[in-house]
Amino acid sequence: MSQDHLDARRRQILDGARSCFARYGYEGATVRRLEEATGLSRGAIFHHFRDKESLFLALAEDDVLRMAEVVAAQGLVQVMRELLSSPAGTGDTLSPADWLGTRLEVSRRLRTDPEFRARWAERSEQLTVATRERLLRQREAGKLRDDVDVHVLTAFLELVLEGLVSHLAMGLPADDMDPVLDLVEETVRRHRRSG
Amino acid sequence: MSQDHLDARRRQILDGARSCFARYGYEGATVRRLEEATGLSRGAIFHHFRDKESLFLALAEDDVLRMAEVVAAQGLVQVMRELLSSPAGTGDTLSPADWLGTRLEVSRRLRTDPEFRARWAERSEQLTVATRERLLRQREAGKLRDDVDVHVLTAFLELVLEGLVSHLAMGLPADDMDPVLDLVEETVRRHRRSG
Repeated sequence: MSQDHLDARRRQILDGARSCFARYGYEGATVRRLEEATGLSRGAIFHHFRDKESLFLALAEDDVLRMAEVVAAQGLVQVMRELLSSPAGTGDTLSPADWLGTRLEVSRRLRTDPEFRARWAERSEQLTVATRERLLRQREAGKLRDDVDVHVLTAFLELVLEGLVSHLAMGLPADDMDPVLDLVEETVRRHRRSG
Repeated sequence: MSQDHLDARRRQILDGARSCFARYGYEGATVRRLEEATGLSRGAIFHHFRDKESLFLALAEDDVLRMAEVVAAQGLVQVMRELLSSPAGTGDTLSPADWLGTRLEVSRRLRTDPEFRARWAERSEQLTVATRERLLRQREAGKLRDDVDVHVLTAFLELVLEGLVSHLAMGLPADDMDPVLDLVEETVRRHRRSG
């Protein structure tokens, strides 16, 4: 197989596994269900990923990287807007509804598995870095308020994202959330006094 | 028994049950463990509460009422600050660490139990109302920004609270959260241009 084929196969496994984990949770995503969801045999799946744990972490890491790309281009508030607006999807664009499933599973395991917490800390740091770098570029471009430290603004945006994920996860209504995200966006933007 | 005695007994059951649910989760809080935690027999416990479901809902409702009191007096951001600063406690003051346990269990059941979601919606509305009324009083006192609808400010504060609960629940570090809450508080306050 060529590298392109290997990459495509890896992508096929990740996409199938994502919907499988989202639907059944980590424990419920049995090898048989992973085979059905990916359309591949267990031999093929575990040729690419050592075990289910490694597959799940690769998936979560993949999601973080894709989110970090959206953050870099459009900011974390845009990630939140997509989370609110997009239905479940497949393929290689960021699909917030699928991503939500992985994120919920990550949340659950963070609460119950200290070892996972340590491994996850490294991964999630990438999103924090992407957010902070985006904010620093916005500040240089004069679009960001300059009276609050970028670390504080980053933590603020991440906290709101966590709230939104939790809100959606609980199945609470989110119809009226757009003006709230406008407020969040305005809060990190250039000081109203100056602009 | 006098009404005072009945109230005290009810309080004793709620306090014991709170730590029991927080420690073992809803499913894990067996009748035997509830007996141990409250120091009362199952007969005494279920004289006051029809069943475990009713006991848990009474507890969650009790927490919402106590939070609503703090919100009315000091605002939702103060609830968040207490959530960050207070260690687990007992007795009849609001104890955010204990409350967090109940809240997490509520979150879990909201995700998995549509009937519970409907019953809970009525309860949680009380906190929303308390928050909105507090904000309306702040607006009348000229302390609140007047360019954003109070419903939007209420939803914003509740979203940040959800994020904070989720953050703490995942065991993530919260040492640097104070300036973030300052920013949240400043966001709902009177427009910087005017103040």
